[in-house]
Amino acid sequence: MQESARGFVKRSSDIEEMPMEGGAGIRWLITHRDGADNYSMRLINIKKDKSTPYHSHDYEHEIFVVDGSLDVTIGEKKSQAPKDSFIFIPPNAFHGMTATVDTRLICVVPVKAARKILGD
Amino acid sequence: MQESARGFVKRSSDIEEMPMEGGAGIRWLITHRDGADNYSMRLINIKKDKSTPYHSHDYEHEIFVVDGSLDVTIGEKKSQAPKDSFIFIPPNAFHGMTATVDTRLICVVPVKAARKILGD
Repeated sequence: MQESARGFVKRSSDIEEMPMEGGAGIRWLITHRDGADNYSMRLINIKKDKSTPYHSHDYEHEIFVVDGSLDVTIGEKKSQAPKDSFIFIPPNAFHGMTATVDTRLICVVPVKAARKILGD
Repeated sequence: MQESARGFVKRSSDIEEMPMEGGAGIRWLITHRDGADNYSMRLINIKKDKSTPYHSHDYEHEIFVVDGSLDVTIGEKKSQAPKDSFIFIPPNAFHGMTATVDTRLICVVPVKAARKILGD
């Protein structure tokens, strides 16, 4: 790896936002395509009253709420997650989120998830 | 793993901030101690004119600038990273950051770094 060549600083607005099921949008900020071999950083934008679907998968989420506020369900437990909250979703835990105001969050997934979702 | 028991929503302010070399403060939000086996999420607080030291290590950083603005050095390249920027520091790349205003950032490291730094 050419480490010094691969480090970078970018603006989130430089990355195309892609639609997600449920009405959210996602930007894949840092992935294996950048030489990040272990985990991937995404910025997710959920407008007021939009959601991410209640679902599960075999990898974890580590989330930080940058702006806004969420109603979060993990398993059967419901919680509120305002700005500056953080959320851990373990592998195989059912989870879903609904924004109560326009909300942005950072969500980090392991590289196996990125490879599966992005298809490489 | 008891996945449903281990998922959580917490507030950053619930976590104790620890001092870092250079004058920044760090909160370890999600680690292996929570059952997060692959990578760890930290919230770093750098007051205006404070820095993180110019240094390197054998693991990567994936960073998102939540508030504020940074002057970032990666190798010999200098960049600005205002709010909503993201930064990739590959393993073994020398790097340092100075806040030009009060700044907060999310910084994710692999679990091997957390185990080394936190001592377990």
